[in-house]
Amino acid sequence: MKFSISSTIGLLFLCLAPSLQAQTIPAYVSKNDRRIMEEYIRFLSIPNVSADTLNIRKNAAFIQEMMVSRGIKAELLSGTTPGVTPAVFGEIKTPGATKTIGFYAHYDGQPVNPKQWYAGVEPFKPVLITAPLESGGKIMGPYKPGEAVNPDWRILGRGSADDKAGVMAILNAYEALTKTGKRLNANIKFLFEGEEEVGSIHLNEIFRQHKTKLQADLWIIIDAPRHVSGRKTIVYGVRGDVNMHLTVYGAKRPLHSGNYGNWAPNPALKLAQLLASMKDDKGQVLVKGFYDDVTPLTATEQKALSQIPDQDAQLKKELGIHSPERLDQSLAEGIMQPTLNINGLQSANVGSMASNVIPTKAEAVLDLRLVKGNDYRKQAEKVIAHIKSRGFHVINREPTEEDRRQYPNLIKITVEHGYNAQRTPMDLPIARSIQAAVQSTTKEPLVLIPSMGGSLPLYLFEEILETKVITVPIVNYDNNQHAENENVRIQYLWEGIETIAAIMGARF
Amino acid sequence: MKFSISSTIGLLFLCLAPSLQAQTIPAYVSKNDRRIMEEYIRFLSIPNVSADTLNIRKNAAFIQEMMVSRGIKAELLSGTTPGVTPAVFGEIKTPGATKTIGFYAHYDGQPVNPKQWYAGVEPFKPVLITAPLESGGKIMGPYKPGEAVNPDWRILGRGSADDKAGVMAILNAYEALTKTGKRLNANIKFLFEGEEEVGSIHLNEIFRQHKTKLQADLWIIIDAPRHVSGRKTIVYGVRGDVNMHLTVYGAKRPLHSGNYGNWAPNPALKLAQLLASMKDDKGQVLVKGFYDDVTPLTATEQKALSQIPDQDAQLKKELGIHSPERLDQSLAEGIMQPTLNINGLQSANVGSMASNVIPTKAEAVLDLRLVKGNDYRKQAEKVIAHIKSRGFHVINREPTEEDRRQYPNLIKITVEHGYNAQRTPMDLPIARSIQAAVQSTTKEPLVLIPSMGGSLPLYLFEEILETKVITVPIVNYDNNQHAENENVRIQYLWEGIETIAAIMGARF
Repeated sequence: MKFSISSTIGLLFLCLAPSLQAQTIPAYVSKNDRRIMEEYIRFLSIPNVSADTLNIRKNAAFIQEMMVSRGIKAELLSGTTPGVTPAVFGEIKTPGATKTIGFYAHYDGQPVNPKQWYAGVEPFKPVLITAPLESGGKIMGPYKPGEAVNPDWRILGRGSADDKAGVMAILNAYEALTKTGKRLNANIKFLFEGEEEVGSIHLNEIFRQHKTKLQADLWIIIDAPRHVSGRKTIVYGVRGDVNMHLTVYGAKRPLHSGNYGNWAPNPALKLAQLLASMKDDKGQVLVKGFYDDVTPLTATEQKALSQIPDQDAQLKKELGIHSPERLDQSLAEGIMQPTLNINGLQSANVGSMASNVIPTKAEAVLDLRLVKGNDYRKQAEKVIAHIKSRGFHVINREPTEEDRRQYPNLIKITVEHGYNAQRTPMDLPIARSIQAAVQSTTKEPLVLIPSMGGSLPLYLFEEILETKVITVPIVNYDNNQHAENENVRIQYLWEGIETIAAIMGARF
Repeated sequence: MKFSISSTIGLLFLCLAPSLQAQTIPAYVSKNDRRIMEEYIRFLSIPNVSADTLNIRKNAAFIQEMMVSRGIKAELLSGTTPGVTPAVFGEIKTPGATKTIGFYAHYDGQPVNPKQWYAGVEPFKPVLITAPLESGGKIMGPYKPGEAVNPDWRILGRGSADDKAGVMAILNAYEALTKTGKRLNANIKFLFEGEEEVGSIHLNEIFRQHKTKLQADLWIIIDAPRHVSGRKTIVYGVRGDVNMHLTVYGAKRPLHSGNYGNWAPNPALKLAQLLASMKDDKGQVLVKGFYDDVTPLTATEQKALSQIPDQDAQLKKELGIHSPERLDQSLAEGIMQPTLNINGLQSANVGSMASNVIPTKAEAVLDLRLVKGNDYRKQAEKVIAHIKSRGFHVINREPTEEDRRQYPNLIKITVEHGYNAQRTPMDLPIARSIQAAVQSTTKEPLVLIPSMGGSLPLYLFEEILETKVITVPIVNYDNNQHAENENVRIQYLWEGIETIAAIMGARF
């Protein structure tokens, strides 16, 4: 018997291949978990509030390093406005590929108020916890390099779940895929944004500026939590969002509540009365036309919605909620509707800082979530019209003497930059391929959600890049996203890496 | 002509007397204004928030020194509770006097939030201002010892008006009186309290412990502002006061407003709805029985009330108020009624700290002012009954899991120690003497107020010491008492010294 060179190479391949192919993505992650942890903790230690431009750029630089060390050429994309926080971009061309799949995550986080975090914890000095402290968890201190990683524990720190988890899972999925010799079937693009938590205010510029570079058949968004049931989840749409800041004015200076109350008008009471007028006892928004403009769900979407596991009872128990705000709809159904939420209230001080004054002003921040069909400007205008109908004169700056003289009820309203909702049809062929890839990593049925509750400016992908977009959430639902004590379950990070690797290796 | 010894002495007296008697109290103050200012600034530089026990004691020690330097033997009075902030007491016996008049002021101040003060100003580093900055005033920096004093300017700092002004005016009135050779007709007592701003929580103990020492025919309270008209003012009563702290609960942890809104109940909305239910559009309190129990005014009181100058129009202009909360009554009339005021509101964050969350809780602080006839416990109970009638389950501690499971609406209510109102009849002979003494220092008619808007625990003087009590306010009405940028007009301090000296020298 003779051995040809080609068959020798073939034999060589057969000898090598098992050792490569036998190593699954989970096995690779498990073997490398200490290194991945150590790098992630360093990433989380760089403060990432959008306004902190110096540190934001350090985050971008850190991501570039992570990409370069994985063989991905990285570059910063800016918009046309000078000084815009850059997005980090990278690209891998796959010979023979006919499709291009982009992976998006954001590296900025919500503002932090360290006083509201667990005692002794700083939002940008990540620590490990065994579980949330409210559920009997313990703070285990910082992760020490080289230490064994317990996947049941959590990493506590700003950005740990929303959305540095996305950045780290995407890059480690690519690493795991290449290091275990798996094959890519599509071209891969990477995009990491730094202004998502301030409304992606320059993403449109970046998209317009780099439209060709960002072209893809589908962008996959890695952000937001998996379904409450813990099952792997695909989300085909997001809600739009717009924030409104309200300030109701009282007297020009704070007044002694004994000497002037209740002669001087109290702005805290006026604001309370105004906010109370916005919803009835059943949680229905009373703003005229608030639920108009909503595009109804298709039959497929309606069916998927009906199959989402009902976790309301479990959630109520976990969150200590006796009954939801609206008794007539489930959480999943409610998400298909626009909402009006009070994010914050402030007037003078409470607790030990309180004093017997009539405050000079009272502030509230409203958050309007929008669904397919809503226009954010129009939705905000409906609320402004409601406020006017309650006898308020609306201004967009501090009141003048003349304003105060002329109007009994003065309110300053600032409408932040908002954006509209987006929804991708579930039965597109490329959408079905993604579904199959994710399903290949789990035995449990996926949760398919027509639209998630959260907001991302995904309409920009459709409108500017003219591409489809689907969200694949990876983090635990109880992550305290946007609030104090944000955390991520380590096991979810590992599973997220596996999910993303499956999508990167999917056939279309 | 012969000169007898006695006539020589008489002549000597005639030669000396003009230099003594010609010096009026205002002249004495004017000549000594730099020294008085310098001492007052040092006094204001000692922080005086009640909770700051170390500094509070430094204030007491400073007052003792001021008394001793004026020939008044000073002592600290404590209650039966160990560690109680002491009151400072002193006494001057006048040979042949048949009456004893006490002078009371307090040396503690309201809590401060330095961030809310004018930029660059610290509450306990007093500075001079030409006028409030809102009215075009300027900050002139700290008073430099020896510098000329402009009586039209103001001293800015915590306690400058409420109520270290009382302490300094009483002690300088006594000094001016003795240094200008004026005669006392009554025994004089001094009492300076250190816990007034936390509700005089131990004054009852101090009164019981030192009842004999504190015996007097009348106590004069030097606190609160003169009438808005600027005219000198006597007040015969005060309102009672009780604070209530409300906390409405939402989910156990902060929730992403997109993923959970409006399924998870929003405590800020619930609180707004609750507060809105407490008053109608016309400012009338809707709590059942709120206006019951009020003792009607006598004919004399009714007449005095009708003669109080109507300054509502001027006040509205100055304060930037279009129309008062209640259109059916004047400021002076409103003060004869119990009130319900929102002192502060807080839920999560507003402004640049805001994030898209459903808050876990929403807090409010209420301030109930009481009039003669009200009992503070009963008044708070009426509000609690109202809250219960709105479907809330009331607790007095953080909610348990069981509470959360059982009740859709949970509220924690803490009722602070409060006290009742007090009112002295205007036509008592001793009250008429005081009126004559104050009137002797001004050509303008006095403003006689049956009860002021503010609160002091004056019922304790009546109930424990069994003595009458009258308030003589000395500071400007626009002093930002209890709030940021507290200030006192220097001219009002000088006039206050003159007023008090006249009372000390009054005939009974």
